[in-house]
Amino acid sequence: MTERTGRVICDITISADGYAAGLHQSEERPFGDDGGDGSGDRLHAWMFDTPDENRAEVEQLNTAAAFIMGRNMFGPVRGAWDRPWNGWWGDDPPFHAPVFVLTHHAREPQQMNGGTTYHFVTEGIASALAQARAAADGDGDVTILGGATTINQYLSAGLVDELRLHIAPLTLGAGTRLFEGVPPLRLEQVTSRPASLVTHVTYRVLS
Amino acid sequence: MTERTGRVICDITISADGYAAGLHQSEERPFGDDGGDGSGDRLHAWMFDTPDENRAEVEQLNTAAAFIMGRNMFGPVRGAWDRPWNGWWGDDPPFHAPVFVLTHHAREPQQMNGGTTYHFVTEGIASALAQARAAADGDGDVTILGGATTINQYLSAGLVDELRLHIAPLTLGAGTRLFEGVPPLRLEQVTSRPASLVTHVTYRVLS
Ligand SMILES: NC(=O)c1ccc[n+]([C@@H]2O[C@H](COP(=O)([O-])OP(=O)(O)OC[C@H]3O[C@@H](n4cnc5c(N)ncnc54)[C@H](OP(=O)(O)O)[C@@H]3O)[C@@H](O)[C@H]2O)c1
Ligand SMILES: NC(=O)c1ccc[n+]([C@@H]2O[C@H](COP(=O)([O-])OP(=O)(O)OC[C@H]3O[C@@H](n4cnc5c(N)ncnc54)[C@H](OP(=O)(O)O)[C@@H]3O)[C@@H](O)[C@H]2O)c1
Repeated sequence: MTERTGRVICDITISADGYAAGLHQSEERPFGDDGGDGSGDRLHAWMFDTPDENRAEVEQLNTAAAFIMGRNMFGPVRGAWDRPWNGWWGDDPPFHAPVFVLTHHAREPQQMNGGTTYHFVTEGIASALAQARAAADGDGDVTILGGATTINQYLSAGLVDELRLHIAPLTLGAGTRLFEGVPPLRLEQVTSRPASLVTHVTYRVLS
Repeated sequence: MTERTGRVICDITISADGYAAGLHQSEERPFGDDGGDGSGDRLHAWMFDTPDENRAEVEQLNTAAAFIMGRNMFGPVRGAWDRPWNGWWGDDPPFHAPVFVLTHHAREPQQMNGGTTYHFVTEGIASALAQARAAADGDGDVTILGGATTINQYLSAGLVDELRLHIAPLTLGAGTRLFEGVPPLRLEQVTSRPASLVTHVTYRVLS
């Protein structure tokens, strides 16, 4: 099977009402208010409570040739980089590839184990994508991991080929919402797969 | 199989960004701006273009013992009932049961063929539900068909047992959005079924 390469993919978990994070994100609660007791991340229960059932989707999430994420997904530090922070994912992050972190606050690249290097991009979404594409050698996929603030900018700019949504059984009512402020999109449903705690839907973005 | 009866069900088609209708609803375009050329209803393409594939979901939509809908779903007449309008569904509507239409403008009941009678309720959502439950003889299901403005009120009031969503492959970007203003809900995914132009997801509302 020949896999089409060089795509720009967004991959994100959302609540049934479209939120990728609740209000009041913090180091203790990176996903903000999730209607729970604050000890867990109910959006991602499908990943952590039922990993066997969702192995394909979890693997796919981390198999791009380069990644893009927003600074709030990268961590809880806001404003100047005034304390050490190298991401939520430990010394050997699951990306094994360059990760371009959008921010307004310049910072030197941070090399981690296993092939992951965090690059901090202050020149905006087009620059981050150009750098990710170059790192992906032109023919590997680039995956934009979130948050919604970042993905919405790429969707609005018409730069996304494929959208992988994992729709979790809860609503958040407030927070950062996927598609908020994004002009109407024509989509093609490519795959849709139910699992016990989630529905996985992949759309191709037509226009 | 014993079917649990007497449930309150919402059944509605939404875009991937949660809208049940676009902006600028009119008699010519009951679903408002849908990003198309105005000739069709792209949200409901799954019903009209692929009926065989979705027979179960279409049948389920119209099998309650009583129905509730908002006045905007019922038709394009706004304000006073100053011209004849008996719904979008012709002389023999597919409901075959009483339909309670929420409105601020009183009107006499309108009997149609095949067992459908439209009752116009001006006393609010609790009254409409009590009347629908009484009509359903206490043990038949009541289905709330939309629009989002109506369903959101029932969700906010904690009056819904089950939510059947048909998620269509497009985004609208604006309009009436399901869950808008509704406090966070815990849901249980009961079923999830892909078809070629839609993903059908049924949630039980836990709280
Ligand atoms: N549900 C999921 O699958 C999922 C996935 C990812 C993240 N999340 C959650 O979502 C939340 C983070 O998402 P978010 O939407 O709040 O934020 P985000 O997209 O992760 O990050 C937004 C921040 O990135 C920087 N940024 C974004 N675009 C930029 C641009 N064009 N130029 C320069 N800097 C730019 C800005 O930071 P500065 O101006 O401060 O530098 C901005 O405040 C976290 O709670 C995270 O846990 C959830
Ligand atoms: N995607 C779908 O499956 C689906 C399903 C249904 C409808 N739709 C579309 O959605 C649109 C209509 O939805 P909508 O959200 O705009 O409106 P809606 O819920 O159908 O109707 C709202 C109207 O109903 C009356 N109403 C609602 N709650 C009331 C209350 N508590 N007390 C008294 N009156 C009340 C008010 O009318 P007055 O004050 O004017 O009397 C209100 O403006 C239409 O475009 C329709 O085609 C789509």
